[in-house]
Amino acid sequence: MVNPAHLDVREAAHAVASGEMSAEELARACLDRISAREDEVRAFEYLDPGYALDQARNLGNGPRLGPLHGVPIGIKDTYDTADMTTAYGSPIYEGNRPHADASAVALCRAAGAVIVGKTVTTEFAYWSPGKTRNPRNLDHTPGGSSSGSAAAVADNMLPLAFGSQTAASVIRPAAFCGVFGYKATRGGIDSRGLLPLAPTLDSPGFFTRALGDISLVRSVLVGDDPDPAPRPDDSPPRVGLVRTVHWDEADPVSRDLVEDSAHRLAGAGAPVSEPVMPDGFQHLAEIQNTIMAFEIARGFAWEYANHRDKLSDTFREIVETGLSTPYDDYVSAITTADRCRAGLAAVMEDYDVLIAPSAVGEAPAETGSTGNPLFSRMWTLMYLPSVHLPTGSGPNGLPVGIQAMGRCHRDSQLVIDAQWMWDRLVSSGTRAA
Amino acid sequence: MVNPAHLDVREAAHAVASGEMSAEELARACLDRISAREDEVRAFEYLDPGYALDQARNLGNGPRLGPLHGVPIGIKDTYDTADMTTAYGSPIYEGNRPHADASAVALCRAAGAVIVGKTVTTEFAYWSPGKTRNPRNLDHTPGGSSSGSAAAVADNMLPLAFGSQTAASVIRPAAFCGVFGYKATRGGIDSRGLLPLAPTLDSPGFFTRALGDISLVRSVLVGDDPDPAPRPDDSPPRVGLVRTVHWDEADPVSRDLVEDSAHRLAGAGAPVSEPVMPDGFQHLAEIQNTIMAFEIARGFAWEYANHRDKLSDTFREIVETGLSTPYDDYVSAITTADRCRAGLAAVMEDYDVLIAPSAVGEAPAETGSTGNPLFSRMWTLMYLPSVHLPTGSGPNGLPVGIQAMGRCHRDSQLVIDAQWMWDRLVSSGTRAA
Repeated sequence: MVNPAHLDVREAAHAVASGEMSAEELARACLDRISAREDEVRAFEYLDPGYALDQARNLGNGPRLGPLHGVPIGIKDTYDTADMTTAYGSPIYEGNRPHADASAVALCRAAGAVIVGKTVTTEFAYWSPGKTRNPRNLDHTPGGSSSGSAAAVADNMLPLAFGSQTAASVIRPAAFCGVFGYKATRGGIDSRGLLPLAPTLDSPGFFTRALGDISLVRSVLVGDDPDPAPRPDDSPPRVGLVRTVHWDEADPVSRDLVEDSAHRLAGAGAPVSEPVMPDGFQHLAEIQNTIMAFEIARGFAWEYANHRDKLSDTFREIVETGLSTPYDDYVSAITTADRCRAGLAAVMEDYDVLIAPSAVGEAPAETGSTGNPLFSRMWTLMYLPSVHLPTGSGPNGLPVGIQAMGRCHRDSQLVIDAQWMWDRLVSSGTRAA
Repeated sequence: MVNPAHLDVREAAHAVASGEMSAEELARACLDRISAREDEVRAFEYLDPGYALDQARNLGNGPRLGPLHGVPIGIKDTYDTADMTTAYGSPIYEGNRPHADASAVALCRAAGAVIVGKTVTTEFAYWSPGKTRNPRNLDHTPGGSSSGSAAAVADNMLPLAFGSQTAASVIRPAAFCGVFGYKATRGGIDSRGLLPLAPTLDSPGFFTRALGDISLVRSVLVGDDPDPAPRPDDSPPRVGLVRTVHWDEADPVSRDLVEDSAHRLAGAGAPVSEPVMPDGFQHLAEIQNTIMAFEIARGFAWEYANHRDKLSDTFREIVETGLSTPYDDYVSAITTADRCRAGLAAVMEDYDVLIAPSAVGEAPAETGSTGNPLFSRMWTLMYLPSVHLPTGSGPNGLPVGIQAMGRCHRDSQLVIDAQWMWDRLVSSGTRAA
């Protein structure tokens, strides 16, 4: 029998719903895996195994609540939880206990999920790394800012864990840890109770080990179809390959993987071409940084005024960069981004999905940084839904993959198109890792 | 000598900075006015006069912190405050004490403001009214949801108070109480720590008794020019008169006022015409409601799951409307709004400012509702910055006025253009009330 901790979300929910195992047995299997590995991986900021088992037992004694009934999940410690501390990766919030659950947490609970614990985030979901290490190789970064969630899912501790992205905080850790990472269309998933970092950019997301799990979780969060029909074999998506102006900054493994993927998709019948990106697109990574700094400087006014000594140098610097950014520069950045977004929407009329590098390369051999966010900056600013597909491994034996993006608010169609591509890029099946 | 409680923000800041009066004297004057009137007006949810005086005394003993040094301000009880309870107008949050100040509060404090108290909001900034009454006539609603802030500023309790708008929650109470109301471009003022109601729509804003105060407060919040040059007399703004499809639902006083304003502005040399609004514009009020319901249903998942009995019937109904709204209807609403926004941006290339009704008419003679939000719904959804100009009074002797809107992220230019119009519409000067 397969280890219950290895089940994906759909399989786990089915096992509980069918009576094959109890919610408690499932939770116990995940907690056993966590217990065996947490000393090395360090995915959790808050973990109370007894309380997780209590939740599972209570579910076992009641009616089926919804599609996640009995499924153990992890929550990045930037999402508020009424029953667990929420410290946002900062000593300023040590012991902070919010009044209410974040909406995503409440929706998952209402659908029957067991909230196993809070996962490690970088400081305020910005750059300063937490304690988590890459489960594929402990000497390497797991990526950030959603470090603990990506590591926990990759290491079979949990089938589902939530993250969020302002620059590259879902796609990069998914790439470094080798799991599916999904970042929603900006505004497409409610973010009440999720710490805002830079509101123009912030987008919730989550990590899974099966692509199809994304639709199931979306059904809980927004009421979208949990089981959309796949794209017919003979109706391939129109694929746009986007190298971006930063192509030369990608490692050969990332470049080769994207090009090879495009080649194979074309071989499978998909029309593949390289769209001409809208004017200004080449500046978006820089513009993303201007917007992020300006908004962080306002958003963290309380911390900067009252707890400056408890901010990392890195965070203090981005606040001060933002405070010294003229308002007109910020508006100019916002305006250029708006114009590019309109231009990109026009481009997307001719494409179903865009593919691009997920990250510079494999996870770097360091734990003092979370790696370079470059290859998601421009996309986050464009609001597109994005999925990381963990299609292979690099020269160091660490995971690599590609990023697939669809039209805004057509997240479900993106997952369908990504599945079509996944089936052709990874012959061994639909499971990551 | 003028009563210090009657000073506007700029005058009050100047009086303290020049040594004409101490921060404590200014705070005491406002508290005296509050003490005399609060039993009737009921603007405050949380008020501790001694603590307000402590803040003022501490400021008096230190260096000048910034442009609001010593200015007493009020904060809608949907903004978090670390030192005062924050109940969001709901018994669910009775006694709630947030960990940190909302960013707008922190920025004002850092600029020297005295936070006098928390003002009454409707339940979660939606429809169910709080206890506040209209200071112009206690039998009439002050409007909502920022009821207490509008009433406090109108009644000379405070020169500045914060609100926020998702449908009509700044412009309507400003109109009903007869003060300037400013709703920022959506996304233009940081909203960390402000309760989200429907994130696609939510926009911070505030109330003042002088139009020029808006720029001063904006300089504190976003670093924009505190004292922008006025529009030259011989360079009038291009004015667009927008009746909307709901024109017939406006009371004669509102229709007459908007038409008369357009006539007088044209007489003063402003090019005035009626722009053709983009296709779909006529449906925006309804679309705004679809988006609001869908987003409230997700955002308030925790309250709905855990405290349903403490929600008003009205709030429970909007949650349930949202839960029964198909995801595709929501996406269709979002998509139509996005398209209209692009169309409106094109329209705005030929106009500097749009004028339209602020509300259906004068404040209705009831306290069980906050009046009809109709005439702001479509504009909030279009993200435009908006200012209510309290230009006159209606048949019941209650305030009326017009709404002026500018280009997104050009809030400062809107205030400049609104001043040009104000100077021509209200010959008696620049002070409301």
